[in-house]
Amino acid sequence: MSHPGLSLRPDGAVRVHRTLPEETAVAMVYDGTTQAVMMATPANIGDFALGFSLGEGIVTDPAQIEEIEIAPQENGIEARMWLHADRRAALDARRRFMAGPVGCGLCGIDSLAEATRPLPAVSGDTLRLTRAEVAAASDALRAHQPLHDQTHASHAAGFLIPGQGIVMAREDVGRHNALDKLIGALARAGIAPSTGAFVLTSRLSVELVQKCAIAGGPALIAVSAPTAHALRLAEGAGITLAAFARGGGFDVYSHPHRITSEVTDVA
Amino acid sequence: MSHPGLSLRPDGAVRVHRTLPEETAVAMVYDGTTQAVMMATPANIGDFALGFSLGEGIVTDPAQIEEIEIAPQENGIEARMWLHADRRAALDARRRFMAGPVGCGLCGIDSLAEATRPLPAVSGDTLRLTRAEVAAASDALRAHQPLHDQTHASHAAGFLIPGQGIVMAREDVGRHNALDKLIGALARAGIAPSTGAFVLTSRLSVELVQKCAIAGGPALIAVSAPTAHALRLAEGAGITLAAFARGGGFDVYSHPHRITSEVTDVA
Repeated sequence: MSHPGLSLRPDGAVRVHRTLPEETAVAMVYDGTTQAVMMATPANIGDFALGFSLGEGIVTDPAQIEEIEIAPQENGIEARMWLHADRRAALDARRRFMAGPVGCGLCGIDSLAEATRPLPAVSGDTLRLTRAEVAAASDALRAHQPLHDQTHASHAAGFLIPGQGIVMAREDVGRHNALDKLIGALARAGIAPSTGAFVLTSRLSVELVQKCAIAGGPALIAVSAPTAHALRLAEGAGITLAAFARGGGFDVYSHPHRITSEVTDVA
Repeated sequence: MSHPGLSLRPDGAVRVHRTLPEETAVAMVYDGTTQAVMMATPANIGDFALGFSLGEGIVTDPAQIEEIEIAPQENGIEARMWLHADRRAALDARRRFMAGPVGCGLCGIDSLAEATRPLPAVSGDTLRLTRAEVAAASDALRAHQPLHDQTHASHAAGFLIPGQGIVMAREDVGRHNALDKLIGALARAGIAPSTGAFVLTSRLSVELVQKCAIAGGPALIAVSAPTAHALRLAEGAGITLAAFARGGGFDVYSHPHRITSEVTDVA
């Protein structure tokens, strides 16, 4: 949608119409009860609902969600999910434990210990990426960012598979949401996160490393910097963390063995 | 703190040491009970605690917090606050209503209606900024970003008073936290948000406009774009929203009357 504005630049004032990114309240509703509400880009809501459900541990497999209905409302969108009976019990237990978790992965957490819990270590170690693939990753992701092309104001998360490039990407005004959507889309497509690297347009804060580890992703490539704590978490979880991935280069801070200087011949 | 890494650039590979921004779990604890935990830059925690408390409506005046103790723990920082007896009752009522609110202003919200509630309109309308002040705002803020100078990976929120420039600024790895810290610092200094403009290094999403409106700020100046919904909220709350404030220019999308083409002579 185009919005009128007045552009006041050193070379004069002109009326402009800018396409601004939409941002809508999205409610995650399980068996009729709202678990969380987030502001998000109103696209790929099914992916978002699945990725959020997996990331929060509400389901451990897409098949545990019997049905997803995307229901637009006057003031937002409801993602209405119906769970298998056994997950319903798990959700009820979780509700008692933490009320109101949302996208950043911290909401509803009521202690420092819970916020800093250790992450599962990435299992298996077969992923290998070439230096050239990592160096080209953020430029490759740019070709999958139509919303950013229009608005210059959205984040993206892409999935890079060795030898195949970016095979899937999702956009959102929120960094966390973009990664949740991608994780949901991969699960729907039956692509295991262990087979590639997440490529993010953003900084790497703690919650993004947490989402990567919980999804079982062995590598994170980000355009900008990691925080010190995000790096410690990645180190501990066995995740290869590449940052400042721009201008045809990158820095690697943890588990660099997955990045090889040549094309690896996988038997 | 400096972190070793390997920098792989088109011109070769070198070992690097980068200063990465710290990110720590911060718990907001009222009268012994944790209300929320957020990941944040471990600086200005007293400002953060006060700004968060004001923004969430836990207190309406700094004096309602009888004491703040900043208590570093092994796994984070506790901001321990003790409230006046009458606010304690208000907090208990709020706890029943929403469990676990945190920094983005949405956590714990359990309905679309609550997420999209109307904002208080900015009262009074005496603020006037010159075009030149708004155009120079983000460059002026850069001089108040020592953490960004070190890490190239943190956000900042500054407060611009007409004729005085940026009088105060706070930095954080999180956009919401930087604004919360600034609002807390202004309250401590006795500076009314109605007397100036908030200047942000980030995009303008819904929660930032909500925080501005609740603090009583009449103007928001951002380096990047607003979302469409953030703009609608600013329009409705009477907030002047200037965006894409860089390169010596800016766009204004709502209530442009506060931005004048010349220096205003305030009687």
